[in-house]
Amino acid sequence: MTSPPPSRTSLGTGAEFDLIRKLLGPQEPLPGDVRTGPGDDALVLEDGWVLSVDLTVEDVHFKREWIDLEEAGFRATAAALSDLAAMGARPVAVLLSLGLPRREMSETATALQKGADQACRREGIRILGGDVTASSGPALVDVVALGRTDRPLLRGGSRPGDQLWVTGWLGASAAALHLWSQGREPGPELRRAFARPTPRIREARWLSERLDVRSLIDLSDGLGGDAGHLAAAAGVGILLREEALPVHRDVIRTISDRDEALGLALTGGEDYELCFTVEEGTLEPWIGPFQETFGIPLTRVGRVVEGEGVRLEEPSGDTRPLERGGFSHVQAEDDR
Amino acid sequence: MTSPPPSRTSLGTGAEFDLIRKLLGPQEPLPGDVRTGPGDDALVLEDGWVLSVDLTVEDVHFKREWIDLEEAGFRATAAALSDLAAMGARPVAVLLSLGLPRREMSETATALQKGADQACRREGIRILGGDVTASSGPALVDVVALGRTDRPLLRGGSRPGDQLWVTGWLGASAAALHLWSQGREPGPELRRAFARPTPRIREARWLSERLDVRSLIDLSDGLGGDAGHLAAAAGVGILLREEALPVHRDVIRTISDRDEALGLALTGGEDYELCFTVEEGTLEPWIGPFQETFGIPLTRVGRVVEGEGVRLEEPSGDTRPLERGGFSHVQAEDDR
Repeated sequence: MTSPPPSRTSLGTGAEFDLIRKLLGPQEPLPGDVRTGPGDDALVLEDGWVLSVDLTVEDVHFKREWIDLEEAGFRATAAALSDLAAMGARPVAVLLSLGLPRREMSETATALQKGADQACRREGIRILGGDVTASSGPALVDVVALGRTDRPLLRGGSRPGDQLWVTGWLGASAAALHLWSQGREPGPELRRAFARPTPRIREARWLSERLDVRSLIDLSDGLGGDAGHLAAAAGVGILLREEALPVHRDVIRTISDRDEALGLALTGGEDYELCFTVEEGTLEPWIGPFQETFGIPLTRVGRVVEGEGVRLEEPSGDTRPLERGGFSHVQAEDDR
Repeated sequence: MTSPPPSRTSLGTGAEFDLIRKLLGPQEPLPGDVRTGPGDDALVLEDGWVLSVDLTVEDVHFKREWIDLEEAGFRATAAALSDLAAMGARPVAVLLSLGLPRREMSETATALQKGADQACRREGIRILGGDVTASSGPALVDVVALGRTDRPLLRGGSRPGDQLWVTGWLGASAAALHLWSQGREPGPELRRAFARPTPRIREARWLSERLDVRSLIDLSDGLGGDAGHLAAAAGVGILLREEALPVHRDVIRTISDRDEALGLALTGGEDYELCFTVEEGTLEPWIGPFQETFGIPLTRVGRVVEGEGVRLEEPSGDTRPLERGGFSHVQAEDDR
């Protein structure tokens, strides 16, 4: 596995990433005991420790009309643990910071903790610390996910000719969000994809033990956006094939407009599936065993090409650039 | 250095600690690669990595009438780094999560980041990651401080007969807060103690290299509260001597009521000085060299006794228990 040196500029496009670039400040050498810094899914330390943090704020990432606080705690924690999956790390512990609206601090803490604890237990770990405070505003959960791996799976190893694959089905979480925003109630599978997502921790480790995974990322910004991160990190282009996208069946059933359903799968975000590149022809033998082991498919969705950015190949054979590939909590809010 | 096994029950009293205990859930063995868990100032991992997280919320921990956002970013980061000081760890990096009020996201991010970066640079480190999102409420900063030490200084090693010491002067930050809450403006030294506190990182390492520090904590909850944590962690009592408390001179000058000034030094919180125990007679030779090196005093403020809890010895020789020793952001807000 080769990868370029960690770099701020290996983030894709979008307002959120511009802000993150700004936060990180000028690019400088990493401390001696830090192996991989800004620009990947998590910080990799000497001795294989992996560290990531994920902030969830009520009314930005979830609303109480959609899910309860226990589900919000679960979801925030699963999202943070997904960053460990994206590094091929095994989870060790979680630190949980909670901001609790006054007047309901104890109930809020209990519900958020319960959900976070469930997400931890599912991966065989638990909450080992954190911070708790009152909030004059909405509830918030900041989750530090701590893991370990001898062999981190980075973003930057793709080469032209490689194939791009994803695990599972796409668009379900975004479809739930889309339906709620229209005042409709999503069905149980779509709802569950949003409220209780599954970080693909075992899946990432299974794959990396069996084949040379060139680069890997978890789908939090949408396939378009995250493929853009992989492309930027390796200095290559990625061509996605529209017909290949594994759109979740309930998305197809529920969202009648075909382009809209496709858009949710392509740019919706927060699927928490894995997106990765391998050398051509190396993954096919493992499709069956993977499906048998985890009950979800592996789907080839595109390929790595010379150039830069992400393009979509339509059924006609025409290709078009994906201008803004991903979902952003920051997008467009800064200019009001 | 001996210390009891990490334990949830080694936290002192108070609503905030009750909530933290609740968050941590039932007590269970630590994972194999975690050395010290809940109940100390930070998580200690195999290979000497030390990890802590500190959440700051606007209008709870600071108001913009008091300090600007750059100072808020500095203060939040210094507070998190102080947890590394409390473990005797050298800082390695910081992860910064920001919640940014809509309509002013970019300015808020820039100011908070600038202050956080200054606090990092002062310790020779920098921000190496984090998360950023919009907030429907107040600005918030969650700082993950990452450090390393071969020899963590824990809370639980005190024995009856040991002496209790603190670095620097007490009460300045709490006095600034007190004055602001009365509509008064604190002088520059009090203001600075609140806005730009100094984590005593070098001081902790200097001390631990020269003598057997039995237990150590940073003063974030106030001397009374933090001494209570040391007492609880070691299963001992602590007797503080009122006359010995190194009350900051500007607190004495500004707060005319003597008991009030004393109360700020004793229970005010957020001094970020070190509070530690050593065997009787071992520290005295180092008082002069410490003062010369760091420009602040070492003051003996009490002693470790058989029993439990913290008591205050008044000038008359009478002693009284400190019922609630510390400052809590949670206290009393839950019952409304």
